[in-house]
Amino acid sequence: MEINLKCGERIDIVPGSNLKIIQNKDRFSYGTDAIFLSNFAKVKGQVIDLGTGTGIIPLRLYSKYKVEKIYGIEIQKEVANMAIRSLELNKLSEKIRILNMDLKGLPNEFRKSTFDVVTSNPPYMKAGSALVNSGENFAISRHEITCTLEDIMKVSEYLLKPGGKLYLVHRPDRLVDIVWTARKYNLEPKYMQFVQPKAYKKPNLLLIECSKGGKPDLKFKDPLIVYNEDGSYTEEILRIYGMDKEK
Amino acid sequence: MEINLKCGERIDIVPGSNLKIIQNKDRFSYGTDAIFLSNFAKVKGQVIDLGTGTGIIPLRLYSKYKVEKIYGIEIQKEVANMAIRSLELNKLSEKIRILNMDLKGLPNEFRKSTFDVVTSNPPYMKAGSALVNSGENFAISRHEITCTLEDIMKVSEYLLKPGGKLYLVHRPDRLVDIVWTARKYNLEPKYMQFVQPKAYKKPNLLLIECSKGGKPDLKFKDPLIVYNEDGSYTEEILRIYGMDKEK
Repeated sequence: MEINLKCGERIDIVPGSNLKIIQNKDRFSYGTDAIFLSNFAKVKGQVIDLGTGTGIIPLRLYSKYKVEKIYGIEIQKEVANMAIRSLELNKLSEKIRILNMDLKGLPNEFRKSTFDVVTSNPPYMKAGSALVNSGENFAISRHEITCTLEDIMKVSEYLLKPGGKLYLVHRPDRLVDIVWTARKYNLEPKYMQFVQPKAYKKPNLLLIECSKGGKPDLKFKDPLIVYNEDGSYTEEILRIYGMDKEK
Repeated sequence: MEINLKCGERIDIVPGSNLKIIQNKDRFSYGTDAIFLSNFAKVKGQVIDLGTGTGIIPLRLYSKYKVEKIYGIEIQKEVANMAIRSLELNKLSEKIRILNMDLKGLPNEFRKSTFDVVTSNPPYMKAGSALVNSGENFAISRHEITCTLEDIMKVSEYLLKPGGKLYLVHRPDRLVDIVWTARKYNLEPKYMQFVQPKAYKKPNLLLIECSKGGKPDLKFKDPLIVYNEDGSYTEEILRIYGMDKEK
């Protein structure tokens, strides 16, 4: 298959799979957050990933679950185009479909209660809350410029079937906002897992599963620790990245 | 000083201090939760402890901070009486005052915005959510029979000065309810610390500081780990219990 790479792009392997992904290290590349989220999520049926970027989450989820259909929504044209080309490269354009649009427009695209699972690795920072990185792409991916936490919760409530799951990765310092907004939109938090750089250090990422219309009953998972005390990766991280088999 | 001990009672030392406390192992004794909370809380000025039990939290806070005045509120007459006798034993009846009453009645007792700090180690379980322990004392201390999380938040909002702090210890599985109710009553969660039995295990206790009228800005503290991998207490636990100097 002919591969149409643009300047600065390269083809990488999707961690823990045989799939390929087009990245541009200077402009668009996935982070550990997306890898952790796609490890945390348990998916089936119809899946939609909000703010999909390079498509890393749909690719990881498809490789693990072989689900029926995954939609990836991305507002930035350039990166949506990279994701579309990655799917062509993997011959997965039928299984995973990228929509280059604003997620706030999704109610015009899909009927209410269409999806079993929503995933999202949204922008973490409130608009105007910190220095906005000079590049506009970075800014949209990292700051709540084009979409807020509230937008994500609102559209998730619309898209999910009753009992459907929302999986989110976010910063722990937004926990109160997340929990508050989730419950406001009838998305009850059911599972929480913190990611800690080391065992004795405070968390720097939060993984959360919410259930549409679920009863209050939060459960925690053991924390995901990234580094051992000696600075090497933990077994769990090697497993998530598919590097345990290489040892 | 004459000590009036009732059947089954004994005098123990308040961990990390020279103060004494009357306990009854079968009926009323403090838990690690109260010790952790009184370690987590930073107090000054006028302090009130809701559901004070044997008075362990006021005793610990007084020994550490020598604050102006601490009130301890306890609805159960028998344990309130034990706390009162512990204070006489320590000659602290002027500094710490126990009120044997329902905390929902506190607005009749104090003016609005009187306190700098509220602390509470409330009942953890929703009424009817699990087996209620046969003894009524256990039931009141552990289940939301006489007071709910909402009662605590509501009265804390009344009692605290603007910027005043609420310190709470609770179960992580109630995190969503805590955060939701706190924000509902204008008590913004500012600091959170999880207590984990071991470094790689999920938390079994949650410590939280809320600020009346505070801006959304949650910070985490490094987790409090109870046991080392070999089953011994961690340095941090030994320090909290004042056992580090004994080594």
